[in-house]
Amino acid sequence: MRWAACIEYDGSDYSGWQSQPHAPSVQDTLEAALSRVADTFVRTVCSGRTDSGVHAQGQIVHFDTTVERRERAWVLGTNRYLPDDIAVQWCRPVPDTFHARFGAFAREYRYWILDRTAPSALWRNRAFHSHHRLDAEAMHAAAAQLVGEHDFSAFRAAACQARSPWRTIEWLTVTRTGDWLRLDVRANAFLHHMVRNIVGSLLPIGRGERDPAWLTRLLAGRDRRVAGMTAPAQGLSLRRVFHDPAFGLPPPALDDGGW
Amino acid sequence: MRWAACIEYDGSDYSGWQSQPHAPSVQDTLEAALSRVADTFVRTVCSGRTDSGVHAQGQIVHFDTTVERRERAWVLGTNRYLPDDIAVQWCRPVPDTFHARFGAFAREYRYWILDRTAPSALWRNRAFHSHHRLDAEAMHAAAAQLVGEHDFSAFRAAACQARSPWRTIEWLTVTRTGDWLRLDVRANAFLHHMVRNIVGSLLPIGRGERDPAWLTRLLAGRDRRVAGMTAPAQGLSLRRVFHDPAFGLPPPALDDGGW
Repeated sequence: MRWAACIEYDGSDYSGWQSQPHAPSVQDTLEAALSRVADTFVRTVCSGRTDSGVHAQGQIVHFDTTVERRERAWVLGTNRYLPDDIAVQWCRPVPDTFHARFGAFAREYRYWILDRTAPSALWRNRAFHSHHRLDAEAMHAAAAQLVGEHDFSAFRAAACQARSPWRTIEWLTVTRTGDWLRLDVRANAFLHHMVRNIVGSLLPIGRGERDPAWLTRLLAGRDRRVAGMTAPAQGLSLRRVFHDPAFGLPPPALDDGGW
Repeated sequence: MRWAACIEYDGSDYSGWQSQPHAPSVQDTLEAALSRVADTFVRTVCSGRTDSGVHAQGQIVHFDTTVERRERAWVLGTNRYLPDDIAVQWCRPVPDTFHARFGAFAREYRYWILDRTAPSALWRNRAFHSHHRLDAEAMHAAAAQLVGEHDFSAFRAAACQARSPWRTIEWLTVTRTGDWLRLDVRANAFLHHMVRNIVGSLLPIGRGERDPAWLTRLLAGRDRRVAGMTAPAQGLSLRRVFHDPAFGLPPPALDDGGW
Protein backbone atom coordinates (compact mmCIF):
# COMPACT_ATOMS: atom_id res chain seq x y z
CA MET A 1 0.00 0.00 0.00
CA ARG A 2 1.19 3.51 -0.83
CA TRP A 3 1.00 6.36 1.66
CA ALA A 4 1.49 10.10 1.21
CA ALA A 5 2.69 12.24 4.11
CA CYS A 6 3.25 15.94 4.75
CA ILE A 7 6.49 16.73 6.60
CA GLU A 8 7.50 19.94 8.39
CA TYR A 9 11.13 20.43 9.37
CA ASP A 10 13.67 22.92 10.59
CA GLY A 11 16.60 22.21 8.27
CA SER A 12 19.20 24.00 10.44
CA ASP A 13 20.87 20.87 11.79
CA TYR A 14 20.59 18.70 8.68
CA SER A 15 22.69 18.15 5.58
CA GLY A 16 19.48 18.65 3.59
CA TRP A 17 16.84 16.21 2.47
CA GLN A 18 19.23 13.65 1.00
CA SER A 19 21.84 11.79 2.99
CA GLN A 20 25.37 13.21 2.97
CA PRO A 21 28.52 11.70 4.47
CA HIS A 22 29.09 14.00 7.45
CA ALA A 23 25.71 15.12 8.73
CA PRO A 24 22.32 13.54 9.33
CA SER A 25 19.76 14.09 6.57
CA VAL A 26 16.04 14.69 6.95
CA GLN A 27 15.36 11.65 4.76
CA ASP A 28 17.45 9.23 6.86
CA THR A 29 15.97 10.57 10.10
CA LEU A 30 12.41 10.32 8.80
CA GLU A 31 12.92 6.83 7.36
CA ALA A 32 14.40 5.61 10.64
CA ALA A 33 11.29 6.79 12.52
CA LEU A 34 8.85 5.39 9.92
CA SER A 35 10.75 2.10 9.95
CA ARG A 36 10.33 1.84 13.73
CA VAL A 37 6.57 2.31 13.38
CA ALA A 38 6.44 -0.21 10.51
CA ASP A 39 8.87 -2.63 12.18
CA THR A 40 10.51 -3.00 8.76
CA PHE A 41 12.53 -0.73 6.49
CA VAL A 42 10.56 2.11 4.91
CA ARG A 43 11.98 4.08 2.00
CA THR A 44 10.55 7.49 1.09
CA VAL A 45 10.40 9.51 -2.12
CA CYS A 46 10.10 13.28 -1.66
CA SER A 47 8.70 15.94 -3.95
CA GLY A 48 11.52 18.48 -3.52
CA ARG A 49 15.07 17.74 -2.34
CA THR A 50 15.89 20.70 -0.10
CA ASP A 51 19.49 21.79 0.60
CA SER A 52 21.27 21.88 3.92
CA GLY A 53 19.73 24.54 6.18
CA VAL A 54 16.54 24.87 4.09
CA HIS A 55 13.23 24.36 5.89
CA ALA A 56 9.89 22.91 4.88
CA GLN A 57 6.33 23.33 6.05
CA GLY A 58 4.84 21.26 3.26
CA GLN A 59 7.31 18.65 2.02
CA ILE A 60 5.30 15.79 0.51
CA VAL A 61 6.66 12.24 0.50
CA HIS A 62 5.29 8.86 -0.44
CA PHE A 63 6.28 5.42 0.77
CA ASP A 64 5.17 1.84 0.09
CA THR A 65 4.59 -0.73 2.78
CA THR A 66 2.71 -3.96 3.26
CA VAL A 67 2.40 -3.21 6.97
CA GLU A 68 -1.08 -2.16 8.07
CA ARG A 69 -1.28 0.91 10.28
CA ARG A 70 -3.95 3.54 10.79
CA GLU A 71 -3.34 7.13 9.70
CA ARG A 72 -3.18 8.19 13.33
CA ALA A 73 -0.54 5.54 14.11
CA TRP A 74 1.68 6.76 11.27
CA VAL A 75 1.41 10.37 12.45
CA LEU A 76 1.63 9.95 16.23
CA GLY A 77 3.97 6.96 16.17
CA THR A 78 6.43 8.51 13.74
CA ASN A 79 6.43 11.81 15.60
CA ARG A 80 7.21 9.98 18.81
CA TYR A 81 10.39 8.57 17.22
CA LEU A 82 11.39 11.77 15.40
CA PRO A 83 13.56 14.50 16.92
CA ASP A 84 11.48 17.63 17.54
CA ASP A 85 12.86 19.51 14.50
CA ILE A 86 11.00 17.16 12.14
CA ALA A 87 7.26 16.52 12.40
CA VAL A 88 4.79 14.53 10.32
CA GLN A 89 1.72 16.73 9.78
CA TRP A 90 -0.58 14.15 8.20
CA CYS A 91 -0.46 10.75 6.49
CA ARG A 92 -2.99 9.44 3.95
CA PRO A 93 -3.40 6.27 1.90
CA VAL A 94 -3.05 6.98 -1.83
CA PRO A 95 -3.35 4.85 -4.97
CA ASP A 96 -0.16 3.52 -6.57
CA THR A 97 -0.55 6.10 -9.32
CA PHE A 98 0.45 8.80 -6.81
CA HIS A 99 4.11 9.85 -7.03
CA ALA A 100 5.45 12.54 -4.67
CA ARG A 101 8.02 13.82 -7.15
CA PHE A 102 6.81 13.06 -10.67
CA GLY A 103 3.19 13.81 -9.82
CA ALA A 104 3.94 17.25 -8.37
CA PHE A 105 2.88 19.88 -10.87
CA ALA A 106 3.79 22.96 -8.78
CA ARG A 107 5.92 23.94 -5.80
CA GLU A 108 5.89 27.08 -3.65
CA TYR A 109 8.91 28.41 -1.84
CA ARG A 110 9.31 31.44 0.42
CA TYR A 111 12.53 33.32 1.17
CA TRP A 112 12.79 35.71 4.14
CA ILE A 113 15.19 38.64 4.35
CA LEU A 114 15.59 40.97 7.36
CA ASP A 115 17.19 44.29 6.40
CA ARG A 116 17.80 46.30 9.56
CA THR A 117 21.02 47.11 11.42
CA ALA A 118 20.59 44.58 14.22
CA PRO A 119 20.25 40.88 13.47
CA SER A 120 17.35 38.93 14.93
CA ALA A 121 18.11 36.40 17.66
CA LEU A 122 14.75 34.66 17.37
CA TRP A 123 14.73 34.38 13.55
CA ARG A 124 18.44 33.73 13.06
CA ASN A 125 17.78 30.37 11.38
CA ARG A 126 14.77 31.53 9.38
CA ALA A 127 15.88 34.67 7.54
CA PHE A 128 18.90 36.12 5.77
CA HIS A 129 20.13 39.28 7.51
CA SER A 130 21.04 42.03 5.06
CA HIS A 131 23.01 44.90 6.59
CA HIS A 132 21.98 47.07 3.64
CA ARG A 133 18.49 48.48 3.39
CA LEU A 134 16.91 47.02 0.26
CA ASP A 135 14.61 48.56 -2.34
CA ALA A 136 11.81 45.99 -2.30
CA GLU A 137 9.96 47.66 -5.15
CA ALA A 138 12.97 47.50 -7.48
CA MET A 139 13.45 43.83 -6.51
CA HIS A 140 9.78 43.11 -7.14
CA ALA A 141 9.89 44.83 -10.54
CA ALA A 142 12.99 42.87 -11.54
CA ALA A 143 11.56 39.58 -10.25
CA ALA A 144 8.41 40.04 -12.32
CA GLN A 145 10.53 39.69 -15.47
CA LEU A 146 11.31 36.07 -14.59
CA VAL A 147 7.66 35.03 -14.58
CA GLY A 148 6.82 32.68 -17.44
CA GLU A 149 8.56 29.81 -19.22
CA HIS A 150 12.31 30.41 -19.55
CA ASP A 151 15.69 28.73 -19.79
CA PHE A 152 16.94 29.37 -16.21
CA SER A 153 20.57 28.32 -16.82
CA ALA A 154 21.75 31.63 -15.31
CA PHE A 155 20.28 30.59 -11.95
CA ARG A 156 21.21 26.92 -12.02
CA ALA A 157 23.87 25.35 -9.79
CA ALA A 158 26.79 23.67 -11.54
CA ALA A 159 25.83 20.41 -9.82
CA CYS A 160 22.25 20.51 -11.11
CA GLN A 161 21.27 17.18 -12.64
CA ALA A 162 18.04 18.24 -14.37
CA ARG A 163 17.85 17.30 -18.03
CA SER A 164 16.37 20.60 -19.10
CA PRO A 165 17.02 24.14 -17.78
CA TRP A 166 13.51 25.21 -18.82
CA ARG A 167 11.05 25.93 -16.03
CA THR A 168 7.82 27.89 -15.73
CA ILE A 169 7.51 30.42 -12.91
CA GLU A 170 3.84 31.13 -12.24
CA TRP A 171 4.46 33.96 -9.84
CA LEU A 172 7.38 35.65 -8.12
CA THR A 173 6.74 38.54 -5.74
CA VAL A 174 8.79 40.55 -3.26
CA THR A 175 6.79 42.13 -0.44
CA ARG A 176 7.96 44.32 2.44
CA THR A 177 6.42 44.32 5.94
CA GLY A 178 8.43 46.58 8.24
CA ASP A 179 12.02 45.34 8.24
CA TRP A 180 11.06 42.03 6.61
CA LEU A 181 11.12 41.20 2.92
CA ARG A 182 9.36 38.10 1.73
CA LEU A 183 9.98 36.54 -1.66
CA ASP A 184 7.22 34.15 -2.74
CA VAL A 185 7.63 31.99 -5.81
CA ARG A 186 5.61 29.26 -7.42
CA ALA A 187 6.85 27.22 -10.38
CA ASN A 188 6.18 23.85 -11.98
CA ALA A 189 9.60 22.75 -10.71
CA PHE A 190 12.93 24.31 -9.69
CA LEU A 191 16.52 23.76 -10.77
CA HIS A 192 19.15 23.13 -8.10
CA HIS A 193 19.73 26.37 -6.09
CA MET A 194 17.36 28.23 -8.40
CA VAL A 195 15.46 30.19 -5.73
CA ARG A 196 18.63 31.05 -3.79
CA ASN A 197 20.40 32.11 -6.98
CA ILE A 198 17.49 34.33 -7.99
CA VAL A 199 17.51 35.91 -4.50
CA GLY A 200 21.29 36.36 -4.78
CA SER A 201 20.82 38.27 -8.03
CA LEU A 202 17.98 40.37 -6.63
CA LEU A 203 20.11 41.55 -3.69
CA PRO A 204 22.44 43.86 -5.74
CA ILE A 205 19.30 45.29 -7.36
CA GLY A 206 17.82 45.89 -3.90
CA ARG A 207 21.04 47.63 -2.82
CA GLY A 208 20.91 49.88 -5.91
CA GLU A 209 24.13 48.45 -7.37
CA ARG A 210 22.28 47.06 -10.40
CA ASP A 211 19.14 48.18 -12.18
CA PRO A 212 16.17 45.81 -12.57
CA ALA A 213 16.91 45.30 -16.29
CA TRP A 214 20.17 43.57 -15.29
CA LEU A 215 18.15 40.54 -14.25
CA THR A 216 16.57 40.27 -17.70
CA ARG A 217 20.03 40.38 -19.26
CA LEU A 218 21.25 37.68 -16.83
CA LEU A 219 18.31 35.46 -17.76
CA ALA A 220 18.92 35.99 -21.49
CA GLY A 221 22.68 35.40 -21.10
CA ARG A 222 22.09 31.96 -19.52
CA ASP A 223 25.53 32.19 -17.89
CA ARG A 224 25.62 31.27 -14.19
CA ARG A 225 29.09 32.81 -13.77
CA VAL A 226 27.90 36.40 -14.21
CA ALA A 227 24.82 36.18 -11.96
CA GLY A 228 24.74 36.99 -8.23
CA MET A 229 25.86 34.84 -5.32
CA THR A 230 23.79 31.95 -3.97
CA ALA A 231 21.78 33.46 -1.10
CA PRO A 232 22.15 31.70 2.29
CA ALA A 233 20.01 28.62 2.87
CA GLN A 234 18.37 29.59 6.14
CA GLY A 235 15.98 32.12 4.57
CA LEU A 236 14.35 29.49 2.38
CA SER A 237 11.44 27.17 3.04
CA LEU A 238 9.40 24.80 0.90
CA ARG A 239 5.87 25.89 1.69
CA ARG A 240 3.67 23.76 -0.48
CA VAL A 241 3.65 21.11 -3.19
CA PHE A 242 0.68 20.57 -5.48
CA HIS A 243 -0.53 17.21 -6.78
CA ASP A 244 -3.65 16.27 -8.71
CA PRO A 245 -6.59 17.40 -6.51
CA ALA A 246 -8.20 14.04 -7.28
CA PHE A 247 -5.91 12.54 -4.60
CA GLY A 248 -7.66 14.75 -2.05
CA LEU A 249 -4.54 15.55 -0.02
CA PRO A 250 -4.97 18.16 2.72
CA PRO A 251 -3.00 21.42 2.43
CA PRO A 252 -0.06 21.89 4.81
CA ALA A 253 -0.62 23.90 8.01
CA LEU A 254 0.88 27.20 6.89
CA ASP A 255 -0.84 29.34 9.46
CA ASP A 256 1.81 30.50 11.89
CA GLY A 257 -0.62 32.49 14.02
CA GLY A 258 0.63 35.86 12.93
CA TRP A 259 4.01 35.64 14.61
CA MET B 1 27.50 57.58 31.78
CA ARG B 2 24.34 55.46 31.81
CA TRP B 3 23.12 53.57 28.73
CA ALA B 4 19.83 51.82 28.03
CA ALA B 5 19.70 48.92 25.58
CA CYS B 6 17.01 46.72 24.07
CA ILE B 7 17.88 43.02 23.93
CA GLU B 8 16.26 40.25 21.89
CA TYR B 9 17.03 36.65 22.75
CA ASP B 10 16.04 33.06 22.15
CA GLY B 11 16.07 31.69 25.69
CA SER B 12 16.14 28.01 24.64
CA ASP B 13 19.79 27.37 25.50
CA TYR B 14 20.04 29.59 28.59
CA SER B 15 19.38 29.13 32.27
CA GLY B 16 17.33 32.32 32.10
CA TRP B 17 18.32 35.93 32.52
CA GLN B 18 20.23 35.46 35.78
CA SER B 19 23.29 33.27 36.14
CA GLN B 20 22.80 29.73 37.43
CA PRO B 21 25.44 27.15 38.31
CA HIS B 22 25.10 24.69 35.41
CA ALA B 23 24.10 26.67 32.32
CA PRO B 24 25.07 29.96 30.74
CA SER B 25 22.74 32.87 31.46
CA VAL B 26 21.69 35.64 29.11
CA GLN B 27 23.02 38.21 31.57
CA ASP B 28 26.52 36.69 31.79
CA THR B 29 26.71 36.26 28.01
CA LEU B 30 25.58 39.82 27.35
CA GLU B 31 27.90 41.30 29.98
CA ALA B 32 30.86 39.40 28.54
CA ALA B 33 30.19 40.90 25.09
CA LEU B 34 29.59 44.44 26.42
CA SER B 35 32.77 44.15 28.49
CA ARG B 36 34.78 43.30 25.37
CA VAL B 37 33.45 46.40 23.62
CA ALA B 38 34.14 48.54 26.69
CA ASP B 39 37.50 46.88 27.44
CA THR B 40 36.42 46.84 31.08
CA PHE B 41 33.79 45.02 33.10
CA VAL B 42 30.23 46.08 32.40
CA ARG B 43 27.39 45.12 34.73
CA THR B 44 23.78 45.25 33.55
CA VAL B 45 20.45 45.70 35.30
CA CYS B 46 17.42 44.26 33.48
CA SER B 47 13.76 45.18 33.68
CA GLY B 48 12.39 41.62 33.84
CA ARG B 49 14.29 38.50 34.92
CA THR B 50 13.06 35.83 32.53
CA ASP B 51 13.21 32.11 33.39
CA SER B 52 15.13 29.39 31.60
CA GLY B 53 13.70 28.85 28.11
CA VAL B 54 11.73 32.13 28.07
CA HIS B 55 12.41 34.50 25.17
CA ALA B 56 12.48 38.27 24.83
CA GLN B 57 12.01 40.70 21.99
CA GLY B 58 12.07 43.77 24.18
CA GLN B 59 14.14 43.16 27.30
CA ILE B 60 15.43 46.55 28.50
CA VAL B 61 18.69 46.83 30.44
CA HIS B 62 20.82 49.67 31.68
CA PHE B 63 24.53 49.82 32.42
CA ASP B 64 26.99 52.42 33.64
CA THR B 65 30.39 53.01 32.10
CA THR B 66 33.00 55.74 31.91
CA VAL B 67 34.13 54.40 28.54
CA GLU B 68 33.11 56.53 25.58
CA ARG B 69 31.55 54.68 22.68
CA ARG B 70 29.05 55.71 20.03
CA GLU B 71 25.59 54.13 19.95
CA ARG B 72 26.54 52.30 16.77
CA ALA B 73 29.67 50.84 18.36
CA TRP B 74 27.68 49.47 21.31
CA VAL B 75 25.16 47.83 18.98
CA LEU B 76 27.42 46.49 16.22
CA GLY B 77 30.40 45.74 18.48
CA THR B 78 28.37 43.90 21.09
CA ASN B 79 26.48 41.90 18.46
CA ARG B 80 29.80 40.85 16.93
CA TYR B 81 30.82 39.27 20.26
CA LEU B 82 27.42 37.79 21.10
CA PRO B 83 26.29 34.31 20.01
CA ASP B 84 23.54 34.61 17.41
CA ASP B 85 20.74 33.73 19.83
CA ILE B 86 21.16 37.08 21.63
CA ALA B 87 21.09 40.42 19.78
CA VAL B 88 21.26 44.05 20.92
CA GLN B 89 18.52 45.93 19.04
CA TRP B 90 19.46 49.47 20.06
CA CYS B 91 21.51 51.33 22.65
CA ARG B 92 20.85 54.89 23.88
CA PRO B 93 22.45 57.25 26.42
CA VAL B 94 20.08 57.97 29.31
CA PRO B 95 20.26 60.19 32.38
CA ASP B 96 21.23 58.60 35.71
CA THR B 97 17.60 58.84 36.80
CA PHE B 98 16.77 56.03 34.35
CA HIS B 99 16.49 52.60 35.97
CA ALA B 100 15.64 49.56 33.81
CA ARG B 101 13.84 47.74 36.61
CA PHE B 102 12.50 50.30 39.07
CA GLY B 103 11.57 52.76 36.32
CA ALA B 104 9.53 50.22 34.35
CA PHE B 105 5.85 50.95 34.90
CA ALA B 106 4.47 48.22 32.62
CA ARG B 107 5.52 44.95 30.95
CA GLU B 108 3.93 42.98 28.15
CA TYR B 109 4.29 39.24 27.75
CA ARG B 110 2.93 36.89 25.11
CA TYR B 111 2.34 33.15 25.45
CA TRP B 112 1.84 30.92 22.38
CA ILE B 113 -0.07 27.62 22.37
CA LEU B 114 -0.45 25.31 19.37
CA ASP B 115 -3.41 22.94 19.75
CA ARG B 116 -3.43 20.52 16.85
CA THR B 117 -2.55 16.81 16.69
CA ALA B 118 0.89 17.21 15.12
CA PRO B 119 3.56 19.26 16.86
CA SER B 120 5.38 21.99 14.94
CA ALA B 121 9.02 21.41 14.02
CA LEU B 122 9.69 25.06 13.19
CA TRP B 123 8.03 26.52 16.31
CA ARG B 124 9.05 23.80 18.76
CA ASN B 125 10.94 26.30 20.96
CA ARG B 126 8.38 29.07 20.67
CA ALA B 127 5.04 27.52 21.56
CA PHE B 128 3.52 25.01 23.96
CA HIS B 129 1.96 22.09 22.09
CA SER B 130 -1.39 21.08 23.53
CA HIS B 131 -2.69 17.73 22.29
CA HIS B 132 -6.19 18.75 23.38
CA ARG B 133 -8.18 21.23 21.33
CA LEU B 134 -8.81 24.25 23.57
CA ASP B 135 -11.85 26.48 23.96
CA ALA B 136 -10.21 29.87 23.43
CA GLU B 137 -13.42 31.77 24.20
CA ALA B 138 -13.81 30.11 27.59
CA MET B 139 -10.15 30.84 28.33
CA HIS B 140 -10.58 34.45 27.27
CA ALA B 141 -13.69 34.86 29.43
CA ALA B 142 -11.89 33.37 32.44
CA ALA B 143 -8.77 35.44 31.87
CA ALA B 144 -10.81 38.65 31.80
CA GLN B 145 -11.65 38.10 35.45
CA LEU B 146 -8.00 38.60 36.42
CA VAL B 147 -7.85 42.10 34.95
CA GLY B 148 -7.44 44.78 37.63
CA GLU B 149 -5.56 45.08 40.92
CA HIS B 150 -5.48 41.79 42.83
CA ASP B 151 -3.50 39.69 45.27
CA PHE B 152 -2.03 37.12 42.83
CA SER B 153 -0.72 34.69 45.48
CA ALA B 154 -2.54 31.81 43.71
CA PHE B 155 -0.28 32.30 40.68
CA ARG B 156 2.97 33.01 42.48
CA ALA B 157 5.94 30.62 42.56
CA ALA B 158 7.07 29.43 45.99
CA ALA B 159 10.49 30.95 45.27
CA CYS B 160 9.04 34.39 44.49
CA GLN B 161 10.91 37.10 46.37
CA ALA B 162 8.54 40.00 45.76
CA ARG B 163 7.48 41.86 48.91
CA SER B 164 3.87 42.14 47.88
CA PRO B 165 1.64 39.71 45.92
CA TRP B 166 -0.46 42.62 44.64
CA ARG B 167 -0.19 43.43 40.95
CA THR B 168 -2.34 45.25 38.43
CA ILE B 169 -3.16 43.51 35.15
CA GLU B 170 -4.16 46.08 32.55
CA TRP B 171 -5.24 43.59 29.94
CA LEU B 172 -5.23 39.82 29.46
CA THR B 173 -6.62 38.37 26.23
CA VAL B 174 -6.70 34.96 24.59
CA THR B 175 -7.03 35.01 20.79
CA ARG B 176 -7.23 32.14 18.33
CA THR B 177 -5.81 32.21 14.76
CA GLY B 178 -6.18 28.79 13.14
CA ASP B 179 -4.42 26.27 15.38
CA TRP B 180 -2.61 28.98 17.33
CA LEU B 181 -3.71 30.56 20.62
CA ARG B 182 -2.02 33.72 21.76
CA LEU B 183 -2.26 35.01 25.31
CA ASP B 184 -1.33 38.68 25.63
CA VAL B 185 -0.94 40.27 29.03
CA ARG B 186 0.16 43.66 30.27
CA ALA B 187 0.68 44.46 33.94
CA ASN B 188 2.60 46.95 36.04
CA ALA B 189 4.84 44.04 37.11
CA PHE B 190 4.68 40.25 37.41
CA LEU B 191 5.33 37.82 40.24
CA HIS B 192 7.72 34.91 39.64
CA HIS B 193 6.08 32.40 37.20
CA MET B 194 2.88 34.49 37.23
CA VAL B 195 2.17 34.34 33.47
CA ARG B 196 3.03 30.65 33.19
CA ASN B 197 0.91 29.85 36.27
CA ILE B 198 -2.04 31.78 34.83
CA VAL B 199 -1.66 29.89 31.52
CA GLY B 200 -1.42 26.62 33.44
CA SER B 201 -4.74 27.38 35.16
CA LEU B 202 -6.39 28.45 31.90
CA LEU B 203 -5.51 25.13 30.21
CA PRO B 204 -8.01 22.95 32.16
CA ILE B 205 -10.64 25.60 31.42
CA GLY B 206 -9.73 25.39 27.71
CA ARG B 207 -10.04 21.60 27.86
CA GLY B 208 -13.48 21.89 29.46
CA GLU B 209 -12.36 20.26 32.72
CA ARG B 210 -13.04 23.44 34.70
CA ASP B 211 -15.48 26.26 34.17
CA PRO B 212 -14.28 29.86 33.82
CA ALA B 213 -15.52 30.75 37.31
CA TRP B 214 -12.94 28.33 38.76
CA LEU B 215 -10.25 30.90 37.96
CA THR B 216 -12.04 33.55 40.02
CA ARG B 217 -12.21 31.14 42.95
CA LEU B 218 -8.51 30.34 42.58
CA LEU B 219 -7.67 34.04 42.63
CA ALA B 220 -9.82 34.63 45.70
CA GLY B 221 -8.38 31.56 47.47
CA ARG B 222 -4.80 32.87 47.11
CA ASP B 223 -3.51 29.29 47.44
CA ARG B 224 -0.89 28.31 44.85
CA ARG B 225 -1.30 24.60 45.72
CA VAL B 226 -4.80 24.32 44.24
CA ALA B 227 -4.11 26.22 40.98
CA GLY B 228 -2.97 24.66 37.70
CA MET B 229 0.51 23.54 36.70
CA THR B 230 3.18 25.99 35.60
CA ALA B 231 2.94 26.07 31.80
CA PRO B 232 6.18 25.27 29.91
CA ALA B 233 8.65 28.11 29.45
CA GLN B 234 9.13 27.98 25.68
CA GLY B 235 5.73 29.52 24.88
CA LEU B 236 6.55 32.73 26.74
CA SER B 237 8.26 35.89 25.57
CA LEU B 238 8.81 39.32 27.08
CA ARG B 239 7.57 41.58 24.32
CA ARG B 240 7.87 45.07 25.69
CA VAL B 241 8.77 47.10 28.77
CA PHE B 242 7.50 50.64 29.29
CA HIS B 243 9.46 53.47 30.89
CA ASP B 244 8.70 57.19 31.22
CA PRO B 245 8.26 58.42 27.62
CA ALA B 246 10.40 61.43 28.60
CA PHE B 247 13.44 59.14 28.14
CA GLY B 248 12.49 58.82 24.46
CA LEU B 249 13.44 55.16 24.13
CA PRO B 250 12.49 53.49 20.82
CA PRO B 251 9.99 50.63 20.89
CA PRO B 252 11.33 47.12 20.29
CA ALA B 253 11.13 45.66 16.77
CA LEU B 254 8.05 43.48 17.25
CA ASP B 255 7.20 43.18 13.60
CA ASP B 256 7.92 39.60 12.59
CA GLY B 257 6.85 40.10 8.99
CA GLY B 258 3.68 38.07 9.33
CA TRP B 259 5.37 34.71 9.71
